Formats: sequence, C-alpha cells, structure tokens
Amino acid sequence: MKRLLAYIALSTLIAAPLSAQAQFARVDDAVKYRQAAFQVLSTHINRVGAVVKSDMPFDKSTVEVNVAIIELLSKQLWTAFPAGSDTPHSKSKPEIWKEMDKFKASADKLQVDVGQLSVAAKSGDLNALKTAFGSVTQTCKGCHDSYRNR
Amino acid sequence: MKRLLAYIALSTLIAAPLSAQAQFARVDDAVKYRQAAFQVLSTHINRVGAVVKSDMPFDKSTVEVNVAIIELLSKQLWTAFPAGSDTPHSKSKPEIWKEMDKFKASADKLQVDVGQLSVAAKSGDLNALKTAFGSVTQTCKGCHDSYRNR
Repeated sequence: MKRLLAYIALSTLIAAPLSAQAQFARVDDAVKYRQAAFQVLSTHINRVGAVVKSDMPFDKSTVEVNVAIIELLSKQLWTAFPAGSDTPHSKSKPEIWKEMDKFKASADKLQVDVGQLSVAAKSGDLNALKTAFGSVTQTCKGCHDSYRNR
Repeated sequence: MKRLLAYIALSTLIAAPLSAQAQFARVDDAVKYRQAAFQVLSTHINRVGAVVKSDMPFDKSTVEVNVAIIELLSKQLWTAFPAGSDTPHSKSKPEIWKEMDKFKASADKLQVDVGQLSVAAKSGDLNALKTAFGSVTQTCKGCHDSYRNR
C-alpha cells in the first residue's frame, strides 16, 4: 500500500511539469499576472493582425518578434488560473474551474495554433501567415465566448 | 537646401528602426502596455531570482523560458514611453522625457545585461547565472531609482 501511494505521488509529480505547479505565492499574483499577460498578448496579436489586414507592411523580422512573444506567453497563461483564483475583480467566468479539462484543451489548441503561426511567420509567406492567424483568432474567440465575461 | 532636408529626413528614418516608431495608436495604449509588460517582466525576473537565491531548483529549461520572456520584453519596453505618455496614472517620473537619451541608455544597458543573462542561462552554469542576474537587477534598480515613483 505504501509503495502504491509512493507510486501515485511520483506519477503526479511526473504528470505535472514544473511550469504547471503552483507558480504563484498568492491567488492575487496569478490574477495580476494573467491580466497583464493577456494585455501584452493582445498588443502583439493586434500587431500581427495589422499585417494580416495590410494596415502595416509585412516586415518578416518584426512579425517574428511579435509571434515569439505570443508563443512564449500562450504557454504561460493557462498556469495562471489556479484553484481559488475566480475572484470578483476578474473577467474569468466560473466555468473555467468547473470545466478545467475543457479549458485546458482550449489552451492546448491555442499552443498548437500559435506553433503554426510561428512556422508561417518564419516562412515569410503572407498567405500562410493569414491562414494561421485566422486559426489563432478563432481559438481566441472560442475561449473568450465560453470563459470570459465582457 | 532641399537635398540637405531630404538627407536629414532619410537619416531620421534610418536612425529610428520600425520597432521604435509610433507603435501605439493612443498614449493610453502605451501606458497600459508598459504597465502590463513590467508586471509580466517582474514575474519572470522573480522566478529567475528564486533560482539564484536557491529558493527553487535550477531547472535549466525553465530558466531559459523565463529568460527568453525577459529578453523579448526588455527589447519592447522602451518603445512604450512615447512623448505625451507622462500621465498622472503612471509611476513614470517626468525625468524620463526630460532625459530621454539617458533613459534610452539605461534601456540599452538592460538589453546588454539581459543578453548576458541569456548566455548564462543557456550555459547551465549556476554561478554564471548568479553573476549575470546581479548585473540585471543592478540595472533595473538604477533605472527605477531615477525614473520610477514609488
């Protein structure tokens, strides 16, 4: 029995990578972090969006920097919704914590989409960038519709 | 004279890379961006700090991700202090805009220090990381002392 418990404890540790473990000392720190990270993320998403809409020229290296920031932050964001961080001063809907598996699946989908955006940005092909950006914004919208209060 | 003016205009364009040109449609957007980016930056600086202080184990790939975020954001931040963004709801001191060259020199110093932090993180050498992190925090502190209200 003791060995079984030790095995379960170890499996849990292996299943939860370091980045997913409690990274915030206080719930408020997680809320502040995710609000700030979404603000930064949206700025860089909009900058790529301006290129996709031809409001800005397609400068490959600038787009690559914007996408690198989007990519790194999209991997961090889902760690900033720990249990108990459903606070009144947040736009997050309680559904997030009720459907954490579904929420996490959306977060995983975003990372896949952003990975494709990164490939498209590096290819220098504007049409590929447009297609990949479309998928990213669809995933953003889907998650916002389900999990974000206006 | 016309040729001289054209030359000056061209020099200005060359001197100001795309990333430094007006990236924010409104002054408020720049303020929101820099406040959010500093919040995200400080989270990741503190995570590297926890490793440096041995409060967290030195997991090389986790540190590299934290440093990659610090590196990308440190290159963006100085673009978020356009003329006129010295607003009352900001901690930025008016000295920033009075001494923009000096402020920009601090921002450049930060980028050099963070570049060394990145090299140290990739080396996997904890002592190198500690040294490089010390330089980064000194530069942070110097700039905060001069340019940030408490």
